[in-house]
Amino acid sequence: VPRTSDARTRAVAAAMRLFQEQGYAATGVAQILDVSGAPKGSFYFHFPGGKEQVAAEALRIAGTEIAEGFRRLAAQTASAAELVTVLIDAQAQALTGSGYRRGCPIATVALEMASESATIRAACQEIFDGWIAVLTDAFSPELGRRRARGYAEQLLMAVEGALLLSRVQRDPRPLHLARDLLISQLRSAS
Amino acid sequence: VPRTSDARTRAVAAAMRLFQEQGYAATGVAQILDVSGAPKGSFYFHFPGGKEQVAAEALRIAGTEIAEGFRRLAAQTASAAELVTVLIDAQAQALTGSGYRRGCPIATVALEMASESATIRAACQEIFDGWIAVLTDAFSPELGRRRARGYAEQLLMAVEGALLLSRVQRDPRPLHLARDLLISQLRSAS
Repeated sequence: VPRTSDARTRAVAAAMRLFQEQGYAATGVAQILDVSGAPKGSFYFHFPGGKEQVAAEALRIAGTEIAEGFRRLAAQTASAAELVTVLIDAQAQALTGSGYRRGCPIATVALEMASESATIRAACQEIFDGWIAVLTDAFSPELGRRRARGYAEQLLMAVEGALLLSRVQRDPRPLHLARDLLISQLRSAS
Repeated sequence: VPRTSDARTRAVAAAMRLFQEQGYAATGVAQILDVSGAPKGSFYFHFPGGKEQVAAEALRIAGTEIAEGFRRLAAQTASAAELVTVLIDAQAQALTGSGYRRGCPIATVALEMASESATIRAACQEIFDGWIAVLTDAFSPELGRRRARGYAEQLLMAVEGALLLSRVQRDPRPLHLARDLLISQLRSAS
C-alpha cells in the first residue's frame, strides 16, 4: 500500500531532522507524527519498537546518506587536501545555512543515548565505522592504508569537535581551523 | 539557613551528574529532586527559572571545576607534551572508570540546547572560552601566544570528538589516538 509506505518514510525523515536539531529525548513520538503527518496507528504498525526503533532507522539512513556524500566528494576531488577542504566547507555551509541548527545528525543522539540504549549505541558505532572506512579508502592512494586510517579517524574527531564548538559559538571559525590544521598536517607529515 | 542552602547545592550537583550522563531533555526536575533529596518547594524557591536555570548553573560549576583542573595539571607538568598526556589520560580514565557513562559534562547539553536556549548556549560558550583561555596560558611559554591559542582550540576539539567516539565505541582508543597526534604535532611543527 503506497500510502502507508509513504507514512513510514515520512516518519523516518521527520525523526531524522528532529533528532539532528534537538536530540533524542526532546523528540516525542507525538512530534514525529505531527511533523510527518503520519497517523498514530500506522506509526506503531511500522515501528513496533516505538521511538527507539524509528531512531535507529533514522540514524542508519542519515549515516548512509553521509557515507555516500563522502564517496561522491572523494570521486570529485583530486587530492586528500581537496577532499578535506570540500568536505569541511560543505559542513560549514550546512551549519550556517540552517542558522546553526543542523550539525552532525548522529552526535547529539549518540551522546544522549550511548549509555541508555544498546540498540542506538550500536547503530551509531556502525555509522562511525562506516564513515571511517569510506574515508580510509579515499585517503589510501595518497597516504597508504595505515596512515589513511589514522587520518580518517582524526578527521572525524576534529570535525565532530569543531561542529560542537561552531554550534555553541554560532561561528564557522572552529570548522575552518580544523580544516586548515588537517591540511597542514597532510603537507608536513607525509 | 544551612539546610536550604544544602538542598540548593545538592540539586545543582545532582543536575550536573544527570546532564553529564543522559543530557538535558531526559533529565526532569522530578529526577533532580529524587536524586538530590531536595523538596520540590525549595527547588522552585532557589531556581525560579526551573530546569533551565539549574542547568546553566550546573554547567558553569562543572566548567569552572574543569578549568581549575586544567590549571592544576598545567602547574604540575613541565612541558606541553606532558600536559597533553596527563590531561587526556585523565579523561580516558574518568570515562572508562565510569563504564563509559561520564564524558564531557558540557557537550551533550550543548548539542541538545544550542538552538533551543540562548541562556544555555551562552553558558556553554563562556565555559569553552574559559577552557581555551586557561589552555592558551598553559601552552604560551612553550609555543608563543598565537600558536598556543590555535593549539588550545585544536586540543579542545580533538578531545570532544574523541570523547564522542570513545563513548560510542566503548573503547578509550580514540582518546589515545588524539593524544598521540596532538603530541606529534608539538614535535613536528615547532
